[in-house]
Parts: sequence; structure tokens; C-alpha cells
Amino acid sequence: MENNTEKKYELVINYILSNIENGVFQPHQMIESEMELSKKLNVSRVTVRKGLEELVNNKVLSKRKGKGTFVNPIPKYFGFKSGIGFSSEAKKRGLAPSTKLLSIEKVPANSKVADLLKVPVDTLTWRIERIRYADSVAICYEEEFFDAQIVPEITADTAEHSIYDYLEAYDITFSYVDQKIVAENATEKYANYLNVDVNTALINMEVIACLENGKPFNVGFSKYQTNNFFLVQTIYK
Amino acid sequence: MENNTEKKYELVINYILSNIENGVFQPHQMIESEMELSKKLNVSRVTVRKGLEELVNNKVLSKRKGKGTFVNPIPKYFGFKSGIGFSSEAKKRGLAPSTKLLSIEKVPANSKVADLLKVPVDTLTWRIERIRYADSVAICYEEEFFDAQIVPEITADTAEHSIYDYLEAYDITFSYVDQKIVAENATEKYANYLNVDVNTALINMEVIACLENGKPFNVGFSKYQTNNFFLVQTIYK
Repeated sequence: MENNTEKKYELVINYILSNIENGVFQPHQMIESEMELSKKLNVSRVTVRKGLEELVNNKVLSKRKGKGTFVNPIPKYFGFKSGIGFSSEAKKRGLAPSTKLLSIEKVPANSKVADLLKVPVDTLTWRIERIRYADSVAICYEEEFFDAQIVPEITADTAEHSIYDYLEAYDITFSYVDQKIVAENATEKYANYLNVDVNTALINMEVIACLENGKPFNVGFSKYQTNNFFLVQTIYK
Repeated sequence: MENNTEKKYELVINYILSNIENGVFQPHQMIESEMELSKKLNVSRVTVRKGLEELVNNKVLSKRKGKGTFVNPIPKYFGFKSGIGFSSEAKKRGLAPSTKLLSIEKVPANSKVADLLKVPVDTLTWRIERIRYADSVAICYEEEFFDAQIVPEITADTAEHSIYDYLEAYDITFSYVDQKIVAENATEKYANYLNVDVNTALINMEVIACLENGKPFNVGFSKYQTNNFFLVQTIYK
């Protein structure tokens, strides 16, 4: 089923993956150069490059220009169902979620937020800005609004953990979530928050979470870095 | 329900949208400067800027640095369920789909494609490279593979239209589609194909379309520019 070229190139992949698995290669560690790998594994540099390329594509390794090839801090590439319950999505994948709360305030809705929440302009909302981490890696910056008529109180302590877990205790859960996704280049602000270079391509996602009666209770605007992971979706016919 | 500031800022939006609707502003046309709009509509430049910003966010207008503000060629921002049936998605939104076929060939699957299609390496596949357009705007570059054991023949003529329509006639339809989404910066190659600046943030999507029995028959690797539109998804609980 496999020819020689395939086997050689998988040799490189297996060498790296097994060294990550057994802890020889630690997160953030720089691995050997192409030339060193080529000598050690007795394969051509073209073969080394092909193996490394696949691991970069699969988010196991990252290349930094003029520096070298590094082991990604999230130990294996993982798929992330974005926009709904960051904490539970991270936990499902064996990653430790954490949150840095940047701000929490009760503010009147501007026309955009009011429109999305289907409320009159100036209706009170909870506005929450957070950075979400998985295994200490900054994954996304979120600006979220909750309709304060539906969600009467959100404390800083709640916002530092899972707001969705908190809401579930009050029987406020989403029936469906609409997402709009675009790609955009990181400004300095988001590059700093997400620990990426300015201009890095980010996913910009708008999320509207609705109750069973169709009333939106939560809208969010998020910027995801995708250097360490994928977003995943399944669409059924 | 609205205060004065809201009304003024919506004045700007309504002025632009009605001029687009009645054809005064044509696709690709540069609109008036902020100063001209401020005088004409008798509102502050801050208000003009706020209105324009919302229209840029909603993909109705585009700003080009040092040039001005332009009407987007796709007449209204639209949501695009990506990765399944580009032609039918475009048509549903009243846009004319078209396709530029870059290459079509029967090739043995490399290890990555074989893995995704769940076939042995070197199994024959149809490899098709295309650029897809909606209303003459390049939306995405696609590299697709079809398992030639399931899809015996794809002609250039078919590939220039909807392959999914063609397959449906043979009762080959997807039961579900798995997507992986990341953001990436446009290389020169993709910037040229999609008519965007090098380094522009693109959506990079891997799609695996499966038959009812779970066997993948089509894998695709696409780059979407999102300057003119959104990708949309709905997630149900």
C-alpha cells in the first residue's frame, strides 16, 4: 500500500511524534535542523522538509522565520467547535481552559448590538471582554453582550469562568447559535492579546445565541488565532 | 426607541444603501469623501465615519488606504454556507456562479489525500483545481480530490460547472461534510487568484464529504477571501 518515498517521509513524522509523546521534545522547544534530521534519519533534506511540512500543516510544529522549527504548546492539533461554550469545548479535548477578564460593565445597547439582540436601542446589557486560554495558550479575544432583561446579574467571578455553566443553572441555554465568520489581519491590539505577530490572519466570528423561542440572549464578537488549532464543523444534509 | 445620535448615524447608512439600491452608486464605484458626506447630509464627520464603519463591517463598502471608500461588487453582504455546493449556495443568494478550471487530471492519491479519503495510497483520484466566482468576483480557490472508484469520470465541461449537480444525477450525494477551518495570510499565488493584496487574511478550509455509509468520496482544500462576504453556520444544541 505504500511505496518507499511514503515510508521515508513517514519516518520523519513518526520520529517527531514519538519524541513529543515520550517527552523528549517539550512544548515550545526548538527541534533539530533539517540538516541534522537528514543525517540522523538517513533521509534526504527534501524528505525531511516534506515530513516537517505535514506536521506544520497539522499544527504539531510551527516554523518561525530565521529561527527554526518549534513544538506547538498544545500537544496535538485539535478541533474546536467555536462560539459555544469555550470552557466545555476545551475540557472535552483534555485541555485546561482559563480566562482573563479584561472588563465587565452594564451598558446600554448601541444600535448594532440592539439589532442583533432584538431589543430597543439603549436596553441594558452586560458587556464582557475576555481572553480565553487553552493550556495557557491564548486562543481568542471575546467581546460579549448579554441581554440584562434575561440575564439579571453576571459577577466578575462568573465571567472568569464559564458564563454558560452559570446560565444553565438558571435554565438559560441556547437552542441554536448563528455564526458569521470572516478572516482578518491582526491589529496591534489583537496581536498583543493573542501573542501573534501584527498582521497574522485571524478568524473574526460573530455569534448570536438564541433561546428556544428564537430570542437572542447573547451576542459575541471574537478573534481567534489559528496557529495552534482548527475550528471544526460538521454539516448534515 | 432611538436617540438623536442613532438617527443621524442611520441617516448616513440609509443614504448610501438607497443610492446603491437605486443604482446611483454602482459596484466598484468610489463614493463621496467623508467631508463631502458631512456637508451634504449636515452631520458631523464623526457621524459619517460611524455610518461608513458599519457599512464596511457589513461588507457593503470597502476602504482602500490612501484611495477612498468603494461600493462592494457583491451588492449586499451575504452569508455563504461554505464547502458544500458553491454553485447552489451562490444561486440561493441571487448571485451568478461561475468557474475557471485551472487543471483536471487523474492522479494517484498521496498519503494525505489517501488518509482523508480512507483509501490505500496511490488509489486513483480526480484532482481538480478551480477558481469560483459569484457575480464575477473571485470568492475562492479550490483544490479538490474525488475517489475515482466512486466517481468514474469527470470531464472538463462538468468541472467548469457544478460537479455536485453532476454527481446527484448518479445518486452520489453527501450525507455529512466535515470542515476544518483556519485563517492564513495570502501568498502571492492565492492573492493573484483571488484578486487581493499579498498577506490579506484568508479562510483556509479543508472539507471531507461523506456518503451515507461514512465513506468519504470528496476532499477539498479551499482558500476563501472574505472581503466581500461572510461564511455562515448554524449550530443546533
